[in-house]
Amino acid sequence: MCDQFYAMNGGHGSQSYTKNSSPQRGAMEAAEEIIKEEISKKLDIEKLSSSTSTRTISIGDFGCSTGPNTFLAIQNIVEAISKKFETNLSNFHIPEFQVYFNDRTSNDFNTLFALLPFERQYYAAGVPGSFHNRQLPMASLHFAYSSCTLHWLSEVPKEVMNHFSPAWNKGRILYYGDKKEVFNAYAHQFAKDLNSFLKARAQELVFGGLMALLVPCEPNPIKDLSNITLPSLELLGSCLIDLAKKGLFDAAKVDSFNLPVYFTYPNELKALIERNEDFIIERMEILNNSTKHITTPNSKLFTGFIRALYEGLLKAHFGSEIMDELFNTYEEKVEESALLLNPNENSMITFVLLKCKRIS
Amino acid sequence: MCDQFYAMNGGHGSQSYTKNSSPQRGAMEAAEEIIKEEISKKLDIEKLSSSTSTRTISIGDFGCSTGPNTFLAIQNIVEAISKKFETNLSNFHIPEFQVYFNDRTSNDFNTLFALLPFERQYYAAGVPGSFHNRQLPMASLHFAYSSCTLHWLSEVPKEVMNHFSPAWNKGRILYYGDKKEVFNAYAHQFAKDLNSFLKARAQELVFGGLMALLVPCEPNPIKDLSNITLPSLELLGSCLIDLAKKGLFDAAKVDSFNLPVYFTYPNELKALIERNEDFIIERMEILNNSTKHITTPNSKLFTGFIRALYEGLLKAHFGSEIMDELFNTYEEKVEESALLLNPNENSMITFVLLKCKRIS
Repeated sequence: MCDQFYAMNGGHGSQSYTKNSSPQRGAMEAAEEIIKEEISKKLDIEKLSSSTSTRTISIGDFGCSTGPNTFLAIQNIVEAISKKFETNLSNFHIPEFQVYFNDRTSNDFNTLFALLPFERQYYAAGVPGSFHNRQLPMASLHFAYSSCTLHWLSEVPKEVMNHFSPAWNKGRILYYGDKKEVFNAYAHQFAKDLNSFLKARAQELVFGGLMALLVPCEPNPIKDLSNITLPSLELLGSCLIDLAKKGLFDAAKVDSFNLPVYFTYPNELKALIERNEDFIIERMEILNNSTKHITTPNSKLFTGFIRALYEGLLKAHFGSEIMDELFNTYEEKVEESALLLNPNENSMITFVLLKCKRIS
Repeated sequence: MCDQFYAMNGGHGSQSYTKNSSPQRGAMEAAEEIIKEEISKKLDIEKLSSSTSTRTISIGDFGCSTGPNTFLAIQNIVEAISKKFETNLSNFHIPEFQVYFNDRTSNDFNTLFALLPFERQYYAAGVPGSFHNRQLPMASLHFAYSSCTLHWLSEVPKEVMNHFSPAWNKGRILYYGDKKEVFNAYAHQFAKDLNSFLKARAQELVFGGLMALLVPCEPNPIKDLSNITLPSLELLGSCLIDLAKKGLFDAAKVDSFNLPVYFTYPNELKALIERNEDFIIERMEILNNSTKHITTPNSKLFTGFIRALYEGLLKAHFGSEIMDELFNTYEEKVEESALLLNPNENSMITFVLLKCKRIS
């Protein structure tokens, strides 16, 4: 249960995830109605109720961060399940709800707990640990949820850090389509991590339990992968190189830094899930309007968003003293770039609803 | 689920609870063997296993603070239950364990999570909220534990803060036997809080579930209550008055400050538990050697212990800027006093094992 990694920025300050997570809220809002509909249609509450002798329905949010998005998503799920109990059971009773808020041990759970809604219809528990491993007992969960999290890898692929490997990622902080070895190393790590995630959840979920995933994706490649770039992170890499040139740190420090993120494609995601035998895909689609919260091009807000996500990792490698200069440079470059002219062009969220067919 | 209160000092620093909790460890260690013995004799694992269709045994520590004591206590309970499964069930299987670490929302859960043992035989979850209220679903718990916590009241009794009440506690920060009205207000608050605690746990525990309580007590009063004093906290009150005299704050600030703690008596505790109809007392005794970790008179260590416990409350009322001066004064007074000559004289821990007879 090792947790060597770095979480979203904690606390409530101007650079916190709490204050810089409206893009993720867009994804969540876009999925709200779909989740309600699917719970109403597909959640077999009579089977779920009989699967535990208590009257508790358990829900887990994997990679919940510090709020407030997680609370809105959970509220939606709790209401939808309550409604189903209200309208479907002849022997009417609303169950009690237990919600597990999971994120890495380094997540700021103190902030999460302080922000928990005062009026809530569920018991809340924080579960520290990587969602690539088991975090809950066997068959203890009825509904799992994970939004904007699966692009985080469990680790940077080892090859890209190895000077002697053809996948060595010199001078860059992420994969690009033009270097196949690096790209493949990242894609392979993603496949492995997604498989670990699915295997762990399949054990935690009851038979017939549902899982809703909101997965940040890039559009399916039309011809080949060689044109793939991630402009916002490419820009971040170029800022680091600028700072190295200014002498703030050695250029080799950029060579040894890589972001542990990979943005999959709907087709690839589908194939990887189908390879796992514990789940059936009940629904899969690209969310509409998932990026509505970042439609106003504003370099300051955009920089805040990127900073809340990646500062933890950057600090650990480059030191906290250069963070302000790095993100000031970043904001200037965003302002000068074409990045915000059409911010929605590439970002998309794939919604997947899975049903657990594993008998624990 | 309001949580207006202040927890033990967080973090890992020299003034943290983590570094100043060896007296509480003494209590825990003194109870270890008794808990093992009672689990072996009294935990009806066949009934418990049938009470949930999953193979999970759930354990809750109420008022766990930041560790490490809670981890040692939980380890002991998990091992004892595992052993019982190993030796008692013909159809041998060791269950999975889910442990709920509960404390107030203001507790430093980040530190607790960071200190979680890497090698553990249980799934861990943090549950933020006052243990005077329900924190877990109905019938979701098999074993509850709470050590050195029940002397914390949910609030300072209102009368002692009221200038117009005969129970107004002018110039003192706690009850003493010589002022009956103040003493009764505290005793009444304790009775009410203990009842809330027992009612909440009775709903959370399964029928036949066990609860082990380690309750800090004073010896049963021999004649009357008028001689009751709590020298270590009386000394703290006198330091606050000294600081007020020095002009660091107004004397009225001492009048309006009261510690929300009450140390019960074994006889009183027994009577209050018996008044609750959800539990049977299976065992009750004064622990031997529960204070062995504070037998070396050392004013510095003793001050650190008191500071880790009460600084949160004192800071919130008097401001953090006077804390160093307050505890330097305290350490000097402890050194000059007879307090450490026989530190074990009054402190005692009553162990109580309860069985839940409430059918959820």
